Amino acid sequence: MKRTAIIIVAGGGGRRMGGTLPKQFMVLDQTPILAHTINRFHEALPEAQLIVVLPEAHIDFWQNLRARFEVARHQIVKGGEERFHSVRNGLEAVGMEVELVGVHDAVRPLASKELIHRTVEEAATYGSAIPVVEAVDSYRRIEGEHSVILDRRPLRIVQTPQLFDRALLDRAYEAPYSPLFTDDASVVEALGEVVHLTEGERSNLKITTREDLIIARALLAGEEEALD
Amino acid sequence: MKRTAIIIVAGGGGRRMGGTLPKQFMVLDQTPILAHTINRFHEALPEAQLIVVLPEAHIDFWQNLRARFEVARHQIVKGGEERFHSVRNGLEAVGMEVELVGVHDAVRPLASKELIHRTVEEAATYGSAIPVVEAVDSYRRIEGEHSVILDRRPLRIVQTPQLFDRALLDRAYEAPYSPLFTDDASVVEALGEVVHLTEGERSNLKITTREDLIIARALLAGEEEALD
Repeated sequence: MKRTAIIIVAGGGGRRMGGTLPKQFMVLDQTPILAHTINRFHEALPEAQLIVVLPEAHIDFWQNLRARFEVARHQIVKGGEERFHSVRNGLEAVGMEVELVGVHDAVRPLASKELIHRTVEEAATYGSAIPVVEAVDSYRRIEGEHSVILDRRPLRIVQTPQLFDRALLDRAYEAPYSPLFTDDASVVEALGEVVHLTEGERSNLKITTREDLIIARALLAGEEEALD
Repeated sequence: MKRTAIIIVAGGGGRRMGGTLPKQFMVLDQTPILAHTINRFHEALPEAQLIVVLPEAHIDFWQNLRARFEVARHQIVKGGEERFHSVRNGLEAVGMEVELVGVHDAVRPLASKELIHRTVEEAATYGSAIPVVEAVDSYRRIEGEHSVILDRRPLRIVQTPQLFDRALLDRAYEAPYSPLFTDDASVVEALGEVVHLTEGERSNLKITTREDLIIARALLAGEEEALD
């Protein structure tokens, strides 16, 4: 397996730490979400370099929090203004010998080992691999005052981890920031590169609301049942 | 409040009853999903006419099943080849005096009373009301061998119940079937009508997989906690 680094990006809620706790620090099954995420990647890829990008305002908080839980070894890097800048900061910390780099949302603690392995392997073959799942709902697009229905059949919902050949991702992130960069695949595509899709997992949930937290708890309990 | 009928469409898995149980009959918190759905609407709209459309092959099964649970009063109508035909059959059973008709997926047992009331009220005002939620994930569209990223900001995920002025919906369903009709709003729009959007609920889940069932169970438990 190629030498791999995973950049775990915890961007959300970076501007203010008052009020609600950012989702990545919330506790799921007695462990902070970010710790779950880090540990999943460590279990799947014990040799991988793990880099966690956090807003500067959260770093001390996380240092204190992680000391109280079992969290696999990881480096902490200061985030930037947008997700794009955070990933770029993470890339600067990637070791010289690394050949593949993955980027993952801190608030997706349920990516399976199988999914992590497969994206790494397919990225080694194709130069990139991003997990997608089919859309089961109906979709509309707002157009001014009105909305139009979309054909859902060609739609895919994009997840992380998104894995790339390291040189490719480095080159992509030399670009100036654009608001159209909503994920790493979009940054790589701006180079004119084609991104390889692989099958994602509906359970690889992005926790952005209180309801998502309830759902994640249920999925985690379901996993444990399946292991019993 | 205008006189209302709700058509609950249980289409999925209609072709064969062998193998896995269709999701609408699966048990959630000791009650079949379809019974949850019916009872939610009965609680929100005690005066409404409730019409359940089932594949012919499932009607006896449901008759036997419903006798063993507390299920609000409802009529049963035989489904058609596609969802479109099923809704049309349901429309034929709507009482003369009804002014508003809603269509709802049988496998969405968690629509809240508040959501049901609001869609009914807004449809009374605007002639239609369909619940939508913002898209939080990234999306791509498959184009041949490749895929392109979509701007998610104008995207909305469409849910049910979809409520309409009765005469409008009747008129819309006089159209011949088209595979582009993925929901009732799309049938109404084919008349050139504009459909009114209202805020949906992320918890108003469509249960299509085993994982969705786990999630629904967790959301239902969360609701009960909130009521305690």
